[in-house]
Amino acid sequence: MKKVIKLVIAYDGTNFYGWQRQTHQRSVQGVIEKTLSKLLKVPIEINGAGRTDAGVHAYGQAATFTAELPMSLEKFVEVINNYLPGDVAIVKASYEADDFHARYSATGKTYEYYVLHQKSPDVFKERTHYLYKYDLDEGLMKEVCQKLMGVHNFESFKASGSSAQNPYREITFLDFRREGRTLIFTFTGNGFLYKMVRILMGFILEIGNHHMDINVIDEVLNHPSRTYTSQIAPAKGLFLKEVYYS
Amino acid sequence: MKKVIKLVIAYDGTNFYGWQRQTHQRSVQGVIEKTLSKLLKVPIEINGAGRTDAGVHAYGQAATFTAELPMSLEKFVEVINNYLPGDVAIVKASYEADDFHARYSATGKTYEYYVLHQKSPDVFKERTHYLYKYDLDEGLMKEVCQKLMGVHNFESFKASGSSAQNPYREITFLDFRREGRTLIFTFTGNGFLYKMVRILMGFILEIGNHHMDINVIDEVLNHPSRTYTSQIAPAKGLFLKEVYYS
Repeated sequence: MKKVIKLVIAYDGTNFYGWQRQTHQRSVQGVIEKTLSKLLKVPIEINGAGRTDAGVHAYGQAATFTAELPMSLEKFVEVINNYLPGDVAIVKASYEADDFHARYSATGKTYEYYVLHQKSPDVFKERTHYLYKYDLDEGLMKEVCQKLMGVHNFESFKASGSSAQNPYREITFLDFRREGRTLIFTFTGNGFLYKMVRILMGFILEIGNHHMDINVIDEVLNHPSRTYTSQIAPAKGLFLKEVYYS
Repeated sequence: MKKVIKLVIAYDGTNFYGWQRQTHQRSVQGVIEKTLSKLLKVPIEINGAGRTDAGVHAYGQAATFTAELPMSLEKFVEVINNYLPGDVAIVKASYEADDFHARYSATGKTYEYYVLHQKSPDVFKERTHYLYKYDLDEGLMKEVCQKLMGVHNFESFKASGSSAQNPYREITFLDFRREGRTLIFTFTGNGFLYKMVRILMGFILEIGNHHMDINVIDEVLNHPSRTYTSQIAPAKGLFLKEVYYS
């Protein structure tokens, strides 16, 4: 009997044209669907928890599909990973209720953003870290993170091209930690607008670098405009870390 | 006045066809020479401390060239890194004596080999770690490392295609440490034969996995043959860590 199967997916986004299936470009969804269809010998379509842009990575993207597996879930994960290319892997597979949907059942997400804070490039972090060569005031950035948490109108942090009508979102956690020369920012919320995390990240760095005063935050949250949020941090530092379900 | 300049070089070897300049393939030497020549506006040839094969990485490859720099060494490193592609970087540059040569002046090298010891793939370690899914007896591998240290005839650990006449080499340090699920092997010696580190690594893993008895070591060191050393660990786990000069 067919069942709903949830996949937790990791990928190095560097060589993908984003999550979403494309006719002529290599996408994560496309590669997984092709592999699943080949393995299960029926056409398979998967629904992702959300799209990620070209270059964005994931430790814990989620997607669902419906199928009857001719083997255990554990064996299925092992076999599909043998078929998938090296830059995408299934971390876990689980059976879910019939009405479970990777996107509509999601209650929140955590993203991480990796900033390599040093002057010289690191060839082994090139694909996954944003090299930031300038001074950063970490105390000030902590303050910015605090102020951005909570329910706000995030219209100023939304890229054009978004179809979302309601610009209100809740950021339940926003902070960063330092590991050596890497600053790892964590963003958790019930949902994020188009490119919102990268625009937030660009904004935090602009203030941390004293390019902009921290007091613009009130203006930015109360009067939607990209005037103070024109900096968008590069895709390559961003990771979809986890998708939450109730 | 022209001076001898030594470069310490890091590269992610994945997208290079090895160190050595090639007519139709992308090589580390080729990319650096092209960039230096463009920057300094004269044809520049560099001499590496040694070749690395396709897919092998480096934290500390060394190379020399002769030129007159129109700027400080520090500025030179900054500028050339801005011109180089993201998978190769100059870590350091220094002036050396006129008779200094990256290859002939070298007194030894350290290589590291990264083994990811788990069953499931890790997309972010795919380019730089050898995924080893099977059991490994770490105590036994420690013994193997001990036995391989010292001066030996390493003919059994040499790939064909080598021009080296003398198969005797000294391994001054060989050991490994575990960091989470990664085993990092360190090989230090006065020199290594063609593909010797990867063949040693394959041999250590074969014994660690109980595919082969540790007692074959005497046979292997005393009677040159590839009978027990046919396994060569993949290039992608290997890093040229440092080149030593007196």
